[in-house]
Amino acid sequence: MTQKKTAQKKAPQQKKNEGKKTAGKRTGAGSRKLKIIPLGGIGEVGKNMTVVEWQNNILVIDCGMMFPKEEMFGVDYVIPDITYLTKNADKIKGFVITHGHEDHIGATPYVLDKFNVPVYGTRLTLALIETKLAERGVKNKNLRCIQAGEKVKCGCFEIEFIKVSHSIDDAVGIAIHTPEGVIVHTGDFKVDYTPIDGKVIDLNKFGELGKEGVLALMSDSTNAERPGFTISEKSVGATFSEYFKDAKGRIIIATFASNIHRLQQVIDEAKRYNRKICLSGRSMVRMASGEHAKLGIKAGDTVIISSTPIPGNERYVSDVINMLFRKGANVVYGKMAQVHVSGHACQEELKLMLSLTKPQYFIPVHGEYRQIYNHAALAYDIGMKKKDVFIPEIGRAIELTRKSAQFGETVPSGIVMIDGLGIGDVGDVVLRDRKLLSQDGLFIVVVTVSKENAELVSGPEIISRGFVYMKESEDLLDHARDIVKKIVADCGHGRVHEWMNLKGKIKKSLSSYLYNMTKRSPMILPIVIEV
Amino acid sequence: MTQKKTAQKKAPQQKKNEGKKTAGKRTGAGSRKLKIIPLGGIGEVGKNMTVVEWQNNILVIDCGMMFPKEEMFGVDYVIPDITYLTKNADKIKGFVITHGHEDHIGATPYVLDKFNVPVYGTRLTLALIETKLAERGVKNKNLRCIQAGEKVKCGCFEIEFIKVSHSIDDAVGIAIHTPEGVIVHTGDFKVDYTPIDGKVIDLNKFGELGKEGVLALMSDSTNAERPGFTISEKSVGATFSEYFKDAKGRIIIATFASNIHRLQQVIDEAKRYNRKICLSGRSMVRMASGEHAKLGIKAGDTVIISSTPIPGNERYVSDVINMLFRKGANVVYGKMAQVHVSGHACQEELKLMLSLTKPQYFIPVHGEYRQIYNHAALAYDIGMKKKDVFIPEIGRAIELTRKSAQFGETVPSGIVMIDGLGIGDVGDVVLRDRKLLSQDGLFIVVVTVSKENAELVSGPEIISRGFVYMKESEDLLDHARDIVKKIVADCGHGRVHEWMNLKGKIKKSLSSYLYNMTKRSPMILPIVIEV
Repeated sequence: MTQKKTAQKKAPQQKKNEGKKTAGKRTGAGSRKLKIIPLGGIGEVGKNMTVVEWQNNILVIDCGMMFPKEEMFGVDYVIPDITYLTKNADKIKGFVITHGHEDHIGATPYVLDKFNVPVYGTRLTLALIETKLAERGVKNKNLRCIQAGEKVKCGCFEIEFIKVSHSIDDAVGIAIHTPEGVIVHTGDFKVDYTPIDGKVIDLNKFGELGKEGVLALMSDSTNAERPGFTISEKSVGATFSEYFKDAKGRIIIATFASNIHRLQQVIDEAKRYNRKICLSGRSMVRMASGEHAKLGIKAGDTVIISSTPIPGNERYVSDVINMLFRKGANVVYGKMAQVHVSGHACQEELKLMLSLTKPQYFIPVHGEYRQIYNHAALAYDIGMKKKDVFIPEIGRAIELTRKSAQFGETVPSGIVMIDGLGIGDVGDVVLRDRKLLSQDGLFIVVVTVSKENAELVSGPEIISRGFVYMKESEDLLDHARDIVKKIVADCGHGRVHEWMNLKGKIKKSLSSYLYNMTKRSPMILPIVIEV
Repeated sequence: MTQKKTAQKKAPQQKKNEGKKTAGKRTGAGSRKLKIIPLGGIGEVGKNMTVVEWQNNILVIDCGMMFPKEEMFGVDYVIPDITYLTKNADKIKGFVITHGHEDHIGATPYVLDKFNVPVYGTRLTLALIETKLAERGVKNKNLRCIQAGEKVKCGCFEIEFIKVSHSIDDAVGIAIHTPEGVIVHTGDFKVDYTPIDGKVIDLNKFGELGKEGVLALMSDSTNAERPGFTISEKSVGATFSEYFKDAKGRIIIATFASNIHRLQQVIDEAKRYNRKICLSGRSMVRMASGEHAKLGIKAGDTVIISSTPIPGNERYVSDVINMLFRKGANVVYGKMAQVHVSGHACQEELKLMLSLTKPQYFIPVHGEYRQIYNHAALAYDIGMKKKDVFIPEIGRAIELTRKSAQFGETVPSGIVMIDGLGIGDVGDVVLRDRKLLSQDGLFIVVVTVSKENAELVSGPEIISRGFVYMKESEDLLDHARDIVKKIVADCGHGRVHEWMNLKGKIKKSLSSYLYNMTKRSPMILPIVIEV
């Protein structure tokens, strides 16, 4: 694989007719400004997606998903709201996917079927996307394999793919040559001078771009809170070697399947110490709880946790480590053990990237706000002015010309929750109900009332779940029934058929009765049947 | 306050008649072995409680609560199951509370009212307990104030209180002189040679006990994964000073109210830099979201997060930090900033404690298993034998004599969940229902059926919450109604009154229909009304 092609020095020609054709029809059409609009990945770890737009040309960078937050009860995944893309579908010239992690490719099955445009990515990245598309039966024949060092034309843009180091192979940053200047997007990156496959991050290219002039840099903020440099992947192999030398029992290593270089290092050490290799796609959780059919953990095993938990999963991974200790394993984990390195650049590397590309404007991306603000602070430290650094927001355009940059319009954006087969059909009301139900459960009262005289025909019947033990709460339930009976009887005196009113009265009385007795607030559902 | 009293050299006399009186009546009565039985605090951070028992003498160390785990939907607190204590109530001679943190005192309102025995603690610890008792209207006149250095008799035990350093003032470790030998329990501790109040941990006492002979040491495992020493509290004040010197706007410092020395240092710096002081009991979360009435965060404020999140709260605290950055504050937090130090001993301090007390047997306590196992490994490192180190379990007795130690019987133990006013009335069934409801919500079907001919009189009526938007799912609901109608009609043909059967059929059919259509599994509640 060749890493570089001859750089085309001239900027791509602007296709003026395209710009005119639909000018003014939709938001922003006809604007001479270059727009950068994040649709995800800002103020969060996940669902990375960024729009680069010039007149009638839109390029979309990445198409990721996010794991649901704790309060998104029952939701499987979260993807970006792509209303802006669907409304401007005919402007979209292509997608560029920087690498194959879920937060960059996870939304492809829900997004790519809507647009018949090229999707550019490296070989491994596209292979992972193909698997995802096939799982959901999505057909996209427009995947275009590129290599680091290549350039492609895409509408008015010319895109240059730049080799970067990351925790998955075949990751690229990109330079987008636009009519207003060059935009550099690092993708997820770190600087590894001694990578396992010998393919070093193309610092020269970043330097060359910086020398020629970079209008704006978007750079990975994930590790902007961490001082120093991220250690080389190679150091993990050296640590593995020590454990392989000493271990008496089996050695079990847990790592992300996508970290191919990590796997290679494990295999190299296994070969060196003449150990048999078994690859297993199962997670550590099964193994630790003893449910894994063939690979139960036993005393004397050495278990190496060669990864860090995905944010939000810390408690879960900690429980696994506890279980492994309980089973008598020698558990190797955490920072002190040096059996894992991050895939993201720390402060010194981030300053290196800023110094090489010397951007006119800087947009820290890919991270929570604490990381993004720390990344901005690094830019100030090396001499950038506050007015030239833009803290981005999802849905808010940053408008650039060769000589200016400012925040612009706000476009539709947000989140779409995937729950089972439902895409976006779970919203605030449904989540609020799930939360309420999860806190104090549910209390259903059914009363059957005569149409003619509003008298109680049957019931009140009470069904409760997640509130109290029904069997141990007979007094509570008896009294609740009495309250409902009285309300129905009172309602009968000349106020027949006021069912909504009746329901409201039952709800109010029971709510205060149950709260006083238990200090709990179950969801109360009165059901009135008329016969 | 004097820190030491004359040590009484002779061991307390064993009261033999007490031992005989109830011998054999209850588990373990009459045994000549000393038993240590943890009822909480092992394999978890929280609800610390340990029983020390010799014949008819029980001493209880600490009485803490734990915050509920994520899967304990709607639960407020968790306390230890004290069945063993209530069954052996007349053996209990007293409680000792080592310090005033929630994981050591939080269960007192639910436990102390059941036993009329002395409760020993230092002044600050008892003051905090009194507040807790008063909140729940619990009266306990038996609080006995002690000072570090004092000794008290308690049944056959003599208890010696030993000054330790921790993140709350007035913390003590204890030495329990028993008929079988001396048990040392460190409580939560660290070694601080330069404490704010000048009262250094009483290392000499631990050394003296070690010289005379310690049968068993129970020691704090919280930081057993961390190498080195915990930095002195005084270093935080030095860091504060730097920020006070440079800050232009207001300085807002978030710390635990119970860390009185930390507060003192803030006040000292405020005085030095001539700043006004405002104490506020509100949490940072209110302030960051702009809801705090008087103290909204604004650009230019310096906000110092002088604490670490309680385990499980990391995501929450991180969100607060993100919000503070968004409001333009200069946020100071995390390890690099050195604005917080831990209250627990790191590896070198733990080895110091082991080396000073030279215990015959070692029981690492207070921590998750990953911490407890690492603590055990430190003991092996300094030469203890594996057979002399006991990895404890909640409810499992460790039986000691002057010359032996072994695991003994298992006593009733576990957790009691507090939800509103309910103590222990929320169990697995209720939690399982809450979890189910939180995932995919609820789907209620009401059918009213004639007693005489089993025909549908009214309905099916469908009520759903937390499942799908009702208004956008009319086709789904219509079809669900048709399914139910058909089942009722089929049931009518000669199988009248098989209501349980009818309910089961409705549940099964709807469950598979809804799952196929949505890939969700709401809780389905069929309600059949007979009129």
